[in-house]
Amino acid sequence: MTKIGFIGLGIMGNPMAMHLQNAGHSLSTVKHISPIPEQILEKGAVVYENPKDLAKESEVIITMVPDTPDVEEVLLGTDGVIAGLQQNTLVIDMSSISPIATQEIAKQIELAGGQFIDAPVSGGEVGAREAKLTIMCGAKGENFEKVLPLLELMGSNITLVGDIGAGQTCKVANQIIVALTIEAVGEALLFASKAGVDPKRVREALMGGFAGSRILEVHGERMIDRGFDPGFRIRLHQKDLKLALEGARSLGIGIPNTATAQELFNVCTANGWQDLDHSAMVRALELLAAHQVAN
Amino acid sequence: MTKIGFIGLGIMGNPMAMHLQNAGHSLSTVKHISPIPEQILEKGAVVYENPKDLAKESEVIITMVPDTPDVEEVLLGTDGVIAGLQQNTLVIDMSSISPIATQEIAKQIELAGGQFIDAPVSGGEVGAREAKLTIMCGAKGENFEKVLPLLELMGSNITLVGDIGAGQTCKVANQIIVALTIEAVGEALLFASKAGVDPKRVREALMGGFAGSRILEVHGERMIDRGFDPGFRIRLHQKDLKLALEGARSLGIGIPNTATAQELFNVCTANGWQDLDHSAMVRALELLAAHQVAN
Repeated sequence: MTKIGFIGLGIMGNPMAMHLQNAGHSLSTVKHISPIPEQILEKGAVVYENPKDLAKESEVIITMVPDTPDVEEVLLGTDGVIAGLQQNTLVIDMSSISPIATQEIAKQIELAGGQFIDAPVSGGEVGAREAKLTIMCGAKGENFEKVLPLLELMGSNITLVGDIGAGQTCKVANQIIVALTIEAVGEALLFASKAGVDPKRVREALMGGFAGSRILEVHGERMIDRGFDPGFRIRLHQKDLKLALEGARSLGIGIPNTATAQELFNVCTANGWQDLDHSAMVRALELLAAHQVAN
Repeated sequence: MTKIGFIGLGIMGNPMAMHLQNAGHSLSTVKHISPIPEQILEKGAVVYENPKDLAKESEVIITMVPDTPDVEEVLLGTDGVIAGLQQNTLVIDMSSISPIATQEIAKQIELAGGQFIDAPVSGGEVGAREAKLTIMCGAKGENFEKVLPLLELMGSNITLVGDIGAGQTCKVANQIIVALTIEAVGEALLFASKAGVDPKRVREALMGGFAGSRILEVHGERMIDRGFDPGFRIRLHQKDLKLALEGARSLGIGIPNTATAQELFNVCTANGWQDLDHSAMVRALELLAAHQVAN
């Protein structure tokens, strides 16, 4: 039984934390802006005033918050984890944030006597609920071995990708591929449907071949059925592509189709679609198609 | 036993024709620029002087040639199929050509008393050899039913997508998705490797999740191992994206990432890489990365 402090009990964090509780670990958390889920409290979670107090009583600390500044605040801020950190506490950041900022944060945690692991996930709400997340880790090998039993309670496809930051880099790579595959399926289905061919039949014909993918299967269907309830929200994927584009600039590489995909997400947001599923990117492509345009 | 005239015994056509022969059908062909494969002749194929003579003796005619003008010449040219076409002969074009030209060609075949089916394939040389091609058909339903037993000798995933031309439209959609997924995997693996993370580990970590695809599996590995022997040649994929971009222009849609992918293929061709596998598109992305540039 490990004393785990879990910060960030949102759509993803809530089911993840419950899997840890269900396996018999002792869970604590901190006061959130939103109320703490009843089930978590019923199972005996302790609620601390702030991350500093939580850190004093935790062997492992997991963060699952929206963005880079949130991780920085929770870990490094006043009353942050770092202010109460015990020697050799393992800090696992499972949020999706900047790989570069991650290395900075890790350095400070290590200076304060802790150990750091970045372990962002993919697989969405369903993956979190079913404990079938893909978890991409950046860590020292011995730290990875220590936390693997905990990660296995939340995910089914867990890889040590490399040193600290490598998990976040891998997550960015994941989000590039997912966005660009959605865009590809959008271009292809739009092409077919404007040519007068049923996109449903096209999707079926392509499923078994080299054009086949989870995205064609799941997001292709959403595009055809116009089922844009999230799923994964456009504004979150915009955040991830921002990390990709900033990263590319600092690495000195060009990623032209990621740039275009981000522009298409921007068009969606400009039209108020930022809380639709990312498959709604096809709507931005549809706006590019010939219309009656006033003047 | 059907009397089949098969025109185009190249890398794809050769194994496809052999499957038909092996099933007991009587095969004929025409003199090609390249010699006719020995095995085909040994099994008793008749060789006609030209497509007109072949058409006089065929119940079904299959074409598997490189491009739109080749199909037009073989079917509609002087001494072409149309000049010898028998009533109700089924003409199946399995080449990958323009969906718009296809409808024109079909009209002329029908006016001459024949029936037309477009049935382009994907799955490459391996798929052709193993009779596991994906075959995308555009046809009248009754014609599709008639040729299905023959198609099943060559492919394992056969769909009637819609009316005449729909097969070619579907193939274009296929080639859009394949090119853009290759591009996506290229951007992602380049990002990871420039960030100092092993792209091999990234590929493995992503395989099970939403970024997973046949392309990540097969072409991702080729990029990592630098194994660019074709496979499917860049210059052929360039031809297919040309069909996509011309089609998009005439349909009044924008397909921005297809346009970029074509530019990247153009960069490959400009560097003499047109006969490498299409996964070598990653090399064009690598050229975009920071280098020591002489003035």
